Amino acid sequence: MAAEQTSKTIEAYPMKGGDGVHSYANNSSYQGRVNNAANRLITEAVVEILDIENFASSNTFRIADLGCSVGPNTFFAVQNIIEALQFKHQRQGLHSQLPEFQVFFNDHILNDFNTLFSSLPPNREYYAAGVPGSFHSRLFPNASLHFVFSSFSIHWLSKVPKPVVDKSSPAWNKGRIHYPNSNDEVVKAYQAQYTEDMECFLHARAKEVVCGGLVALIIPGRPNGMHHSQSLTTDVLESCLMDMARKGIISEEKVDSFNIPMYFMSPQELEAAVDRNGNFRIERIITELGTVPETQSQKIPSDFRAVFEGVIMEHFGYEILDELFDSFGKKFEVEFITKPMSGSSSVFFALLKRKATN
Amino acid sequence: MAAEQTSKTIEAYPMKGGDGVHSYANNSSYQGRVNNAANRLITEAVVEILDIENFASSNTFRIADLGCSVGPNTFFAVQNIIEALQFKHQRQGLHSQLPEFQVFFNDHILNDFNTLFSSLPPNREYYAAGVPGSFHSRLFPNASLHFVFSSFSIHWLSKVPKPVVDKSSPAWNKGRIHYPNSNDEVVKAYQAQYTEDMECFLHARAKEVVCGGLVALIIPGRPNGMHHSQSLTTDVLESCLMDMARKGIISEEKVDSFNIPMYFMSPQELEAAVDRNGNFRIERIITELGTVPETQSQKIPSDFRAVFEGVIMEHFGYEILDELFDSFGKKFEVEFITKPMSGSSSVFFALLKRKATN
Repeated sequence: MAAEQTSKTIEAYPMKGGDGVHSYANNSSYQGRVNNAANRLITEAVVEILDIENFASSNTFRIADLGCSVGPNTFFAVQNIIEALQFKHQRQGLHSQLPEFQVFFNDHILNDFNTLFSSLPPNREYYAAGVPGSFHSRLFPNASLHFVFSSFSIHWLSKVPKPVVDKSSPAWNKGRIHYPNSNDEVVKAYQAQYTEDMECFLHARAKEVVCGGLVALIIPGRPNGMHHSQSLTTDVLESCLMDMARKGIISEEKVDSFNIPMYFMSPQELEAAVDRNGNFRIERIITELGTVPETQSQKIPSDFRAVFEGVIMEHFGYEILDELFDSFGKKFEVEFITKPMSGSSSVFFALLKRKATN
Repeated sequence: MAAEQTSKTIEAYPMKGGDGVHSYANNSSYQGRVNNAANRLITEAVVEILDIENFASSNTFRIADLGCSVGPNTFFAVQNIIEALQFKHQRQGLHSQLPEFQVFFNDHILNDFNTLFSSLPPNREYYAAGVPGSFHSRLFPNASLHFVFSSFSIHWLSKVPKPVVDKSSPAWNKGRIHYPNSNDEVVKAYQAQYTEDMECFLHARAKEVVCGGLVALIIPGRPNGMHHSQSLTTDVLESCLMDMARKGIISEEKVDSFNIPMYFMSPQELEAAVDRNGNFRIERIITELGTVPETQSQKIPSDFRAVFEGVIMEHFGYEILDELFDSFGKKFEVEFITKPMSGSSSVFFALLKRKATN
């Protein structure tokens, strides 16, 4: 077990902690809006697909949010799951058998759990626990979870694929910080890392989730059949970093060795991974989960900063952040007018059910 | 459930976080030494008293450390419990049925969980979770824990007893910061708060611990029959605060309204509380748990600071800490030569077993 937990070197890029002006807590409104659309789907999943009778012998219903960050989105999502469960028990005349709820908030060890714990809803109807560690490894005992939720998290890879920072590799990603506009070798290296990570994710969850338990995923990905070059890109950020390199604020080599460990899977790729794992059945895949309203476009640069600050700081240090995101905000404004964002349709919802063991 | 969790206003005085020179992590060697003595008793408890066959149907053995602070003592204690369980399974030929272990590290919401999580042993043989909240309330689902451990924690009260800060009460504790040298009314107010808090503690644990589960407590208390005035006192700290009031650094009124929310129970008082609760059987009470070696006396002022800094900062603010503990260190050195500490025999170990429900 210990070996399973620690055999992989996993890099951690938590969202920006605290509750300051640049924090994830105050800059995750986009994720929150998509989650609202997902809430309806999760309510449906609980009401239509979860067989609560199977769990009647257990007096505790255990829920985990993997990649919860610091709130408040995680609290809304958890509350929604619990309300759906309460509704279902009531509707089936099982109100007297309503279990207690225990909720595990998971994120990387470097996530700001202190802020998360301080902002737990005071009137919550569940027992709360924080679980530090990567969801690419085991985090929970065998068959101990009934409902796993993960939103805007499993597109993060466990690490930057090695070949893309290896100068001697054909996949060396010089001058670029991500794969969408890079050559095929770079894309393949990212794909390989995704495949490995998703295998680890599903393997761990298959052990942890009880038979009949659900895994609900909200995934920023790309539609089936869309070429990677049409994925949401980080071009604007890349060109801001290059500007700073040209000005001598950071070295070009430092930009060359920087890559964002994120992969936009398609629903088909997820289905293939679930098939290979064999322990889950896909109950739902719903694409085009909400859109980014244009009126909210001013919020995007700050949402972007909250998400990427950790990974950038880790590589370039704290000093460049303000200048980088200032210029990002300005460039983004110009880009947004000429080419409004259209990547929103790539967020999809997937619902997996743990099969009974043979 | 939510009501049970939040109905009480509980004040939180976590130990000093981080890993700096004044942190609890680097200044809890005394607690660590006593825990070493306790480890032997806990090994005995697991080997001789725990009926592991009763739990064979559960594939997870759940352990909680209540009031864990930030480590490293909590990690040593947990490791010891797990090794004792492994030994017992092996000895009884049940090695193939060894459960997985899940460990819940609990402390107040303001405890530094970020530091705790960052220092988790990398090769641990358990799934770790942090649980924020007061152990005077419910923290876990019904019948979900097999072994509860709490060391140097349940002598903290949930709050300062109200009468001791009420100028109109005969229990007003003017000029004093604790009860041992105060009048009987003050002592009674502390006793009443202890009684209420211990009732809440045992009530919550009776719900959370499975039948046959164990609760192991290491308690800084006082021997049976010892008068309160002979308890370990905080005279030196009190006189340092009074010095600062005389110098005008803090107001005398501020000192008058400061009281340490801590009560040194006797084994008999604990037994009476357990009897009143009715859900536990006392399996062991072992007194005189280790001594403070004189050679370690230089460490005491820094241990003292790590423990009391939180509660002092809460009341007086951050600014006075360095001056206060400097003068404390100097006074303590003088006092220690004339009157070596003798309070060590008051630490005792208690082992409770959850009775079967009728």
